[in-house]
Amino acid sequence: MSHAITPRAVNYSQWYLDIVKEARLADYGPTKGSIVIRPGGYALWERLQATLDRMLKEAGHVNAYFPLLIPSSYLQKEAEHVEGFAPETAVVTHGGGAPLEEPLVIRPTSETVIWSMYKKWIQSYRDLPILINQWVNVVRWEKRPRPFLRTTEFLWQEGHTAHSSATEAQQEAQRILEIYRRFVEEVMAIPVLVGQKSESERFAGAVKTYAIEALMQDRKALQAGTSHFLGQNFAKAFDVLFQNEQGKEEFVWATSWGVSTRLIGALIMVHSDDRGLIIPPRCAPTEIVLIPIYKDSTRTQVLAHCSQLQQRLSKRFRIVTDADPQNSPGWKFAEWELRGVPLRIECGPKDIENDSVMMVRRDSGKKESVSLADLEATCSSTLSEIQHGLYQRALDFQKNHSQHFTDYRNFIQFLSEEGGLAYAGWDGSANTELKVKEDSGATIRIIKALHNSDIGHLNCIVSNQPAKYTAIFAKSY
Amino acid sequence: MSHAITPRAVNYSQWYLDIVKEARLADYGPTKGSIVIRPGGYALWERLQATLDRMLKEAGHVNAYFPLLIPSSYLQKEAEHVEGFAPETAVVTHGGGAPLEEPLVIRPTSETVIWSMYKKWIQSYRDLPILINQWVNVVRWEKRPRPFLRTTEFLWQEGHTAHSSATEAQQEAQRILEIYRRFVEEVMAIPVLVGQKSESERFAGAVKTYAIEALMQDRKALQAGTSHFLGQNFAKAFDVLFQNEQGKEEFVWATSWGVSTRLIGALIMVHSDDRGLIIPPRCAPTEIVLIPIYKDSTRTQVLAHCSQLQQRLSKRFRIVTDADPQNSPGWKFAEWELRGVPLRIECGPKDIENDSVMMVRRDSGKKESVSLADLEATCSSTLSEIQHGLYQRALDFQKNHSQHFTDYRNFIQFLSEEGGLAYAGWDGSANTELKVKEDSGATIRIIKALHNSDIGHLNCIVSNQPAKYTAIFAKSY
Repeated sequence: MSHAITPRAVNYSQWYLDIVKEARLADYGPTKGSIVIRPGGYALWERLQATLDRMLKEAGHVNAYFPLLIPSSYLQKEAEHVEGFAPETAVVTHGGGAPLEEPLVIRPTSETVIWSMYKKWIQSYRDLPILINQWVNVVRWEKRPRPFLRTTEFLWQEGHTAHSSATEAQQEAQRILEIYRRFVEEVMAIPVLVGQKSESERFAGAVKTYAIEALMQDRKALQAGTSHFLGQNFAKAFDVLFQNEQGKEEFVWATSWGVSTRLIGALIMVHSDDRGLIIPPRCAPTEIVLIPIYKDSTRTQVLAHCSQLQQRLSKRFRIVTDADPQNSPGWKFAEWELRGVPLRIECGPKDIENDSVMMVRRDSGKKESVSLADLEATCSSTLSEIQHGLYQRALDFQKNHSQHFTDYRNFIQFLSEEGGLAYAGWDGSANTELKVKEDSGATIRIIKALHNSDIGHLNCIVSNQPAKYTAIFAKSY
Repeated sequence: MSHAITPRAVNYSQWYLDIVKEARLADYGPTKGSIVIRPGGYALWERLQATLDRMLKEAGHVNAYFPLLIPSSYLQKEAEHVEGFAPETAVVTHGGGAPLEEPLVIRPTSETVIWSMYKKWIQSYRDLPILINQWVNVVRWEKRPRPFLRTTEFLWQEGHTAHSSATEAQQEAQRILEIYRRFVEEVMAIPVLVGQKSESERFAGAVKTYAIEALMQDRKALQAGTSHFLGQNFAKAFDVLFQNEQGKEEFVWATSWGVSTRLIGALIMVHSDDRGLIIPPRCAPTEIVLIPIYKDSTRTQVLAHCSQLQQRLSKRFRIVTDADPQNSPGWKFAEWELRGVPLRIECGPKDIENDSVMMVRRDSGKKESVSLADLEATCSSTLSEIQHGLYQRALDFQKNHSQHFTDYRNFIQFLSEEGGLAYAGWDGSANTELKVKEDSGATIRIIKALHNSDIGHLNCIVSNQPAKYTAIFAKSY
């Protein structure tokens, strides 16, 4: 292989950075915490974006664009919000060659600027709901940057909805959570935990935060998307009232929700291996790479045949042919494995003779000869098998690294030494949560209401008091 | 009509602002010069973006994402570039709660940050060409803001290519210009002038700037897109060398090019009328609006029929049904005319009886009954007629307001009083260009090499010296 990728077993963290670099997903930018998303990484983002965008639109959302720069006084209007975000902001103090009267912050998230506009747009229940989303860049100053996972600037979508009742807003927050779950599980083949966040992990300004969490191959969890029920907090901060059907004035109810380029980090860490990236077919910019195998004497024949194959398959698949004469087939095999293309088709003179091609799966390395007559059907079923196989493998991994605990010592030992998802009863207090963090480095990723059968029977893993929730603890990114 | 739109004849400038506001394309943001692109405007941008993006990809370009924040020292590296852009920048001086060691500017354009990366990526001719584009927001402090036309923040695509020869880079700059021309003429139905810019209007850092220019209904020109041949200026500023096929080191050759949300302003000003927006079908987020016409007694029947029609037509067209019971048909007609949907279909009990619908064109207001049997074919041909009709109307307008001049007094009078595109010989000197500007307020929009037949026969409209170019002068946005 022409690329040096540190094996996961040697250094997982370095393996991740090697994949990002060698598969040309991203490069470091000129300032601390910034990255450049290279064409390989961006094509992946475009594919994720297009799919999720369609799902959000099918659910009735529309896109818009709100300004990048927010007056710093706006951030101040919601007490928790400013406390959470002000320390992370980038501040513009000069514009057009002169100092500004009021500093502007680059949006770390857009609740404040959007609710300042909703104030102008909402008068009556007839103006509701508003179901707006935007695909934008945001900036949050990052002390420990890591490509895709934590960068000072990142790309995301942020949805901001306005409703005439608490119930409707709550339902919207959960409806989005379900869209995120479907998107990440069905398109990205990443199984997730779905549930609520504890108070300490709640979004600054939210009443409730819901999240999807995925388990990486190093048994650390990663928050892959969040959906917030904001109550009337931002409506109150920006004085956004509406006249309800009974003619009475009421503050508007809100949600906000987002997923970001962090998903690319999740995709790498869940599926990839020591040979490079593995991209699930449904989100792969290229599903199939076709590699002609020839000598000087067979060159013309093989290239002509492959050009026909490319034309034929491109009607149904996202396929590229790598006919670059400057690289050997072996070099190309390694290169396209590194870049994570799910299916490779090799075609040389013998294959042509036999009316077949050689097909190689990226996930398993399995090689098989496929008759040209069955080509589309076999490509299609194999891609589908890869998609489901990747999901199943990740799900098995998640299950194999999930454990229920009632004994605190075992619980801490699991979290500190083995890693994975530790399920346990939790009394709901911030103190017990903090104690686990101090003893193990793990935090609560998700809380769930108790099953009926557990109520009164499950105790908190720390305090031994009656549990209020089942909590899932893990170390996390 | 429920919306107050100032007629063009009364106040063209106010008419434009009224359309932007009433058709809900945009609203003013919280800071000077900022706008919010509302869902109606953003859907238009998404459609333009998707179409142009496909054209650029078909021509071999790939998308990427470079950082928003650029060290201010980068801007300094190209002398003309910093002179042109530094006065317009927004400057970040604080991040993460502390003053920054070096201030960062929000990208006004990305040549500098991109060439700092190309320095890392380019070693040999084998790494070339690089054909990268990005769709991003940029900030340029704007003293006289106007929605879509001049805003402090705007959205655009910026292409940045790197080549191994001057010829190839020159060809790329012109190839893009041709893509822009096709896109704006064929998709947006806006005829454009294509050519080079004079030195005074050249991009800061370019060797040559090419542009497409369109004529608005108030007979002022608008620059709709630019493509720059950058020579080796940025390669020299960032020390980007490559080894050529002969093994010698050479500076890399470059282009950059962009179109922005300004195109939405052009679309409004070229096509729309006193009733509101008119969107050419090929870039209309909604091509057809279907409006059920019913009384209480026919409600169920009409809505069921329209629901079938919607389902049937949505297979081939971007169509929405407006069945909102809270608004009258008359209100809806005005509303959807305001929003510029090219085709309206009305359907009531009588239409159902006759197996027909009523079809109304947005461009001409022409109404005709169409048999259900021919519905798709008629929609399709009518949309195509509207597309071509809008282009032809704009082209006629452009021709009717273009004139060749050899007499300076007539020339100045035309530019000052009548307005339009004034063609004249130009000696190529900055002084003569400036004199025209002082006398008339017009600038050179495009210069063209002389036709063979003109060489030696055409004199400069100002100096009466032999002309070097045919220049097209106009007042502009």
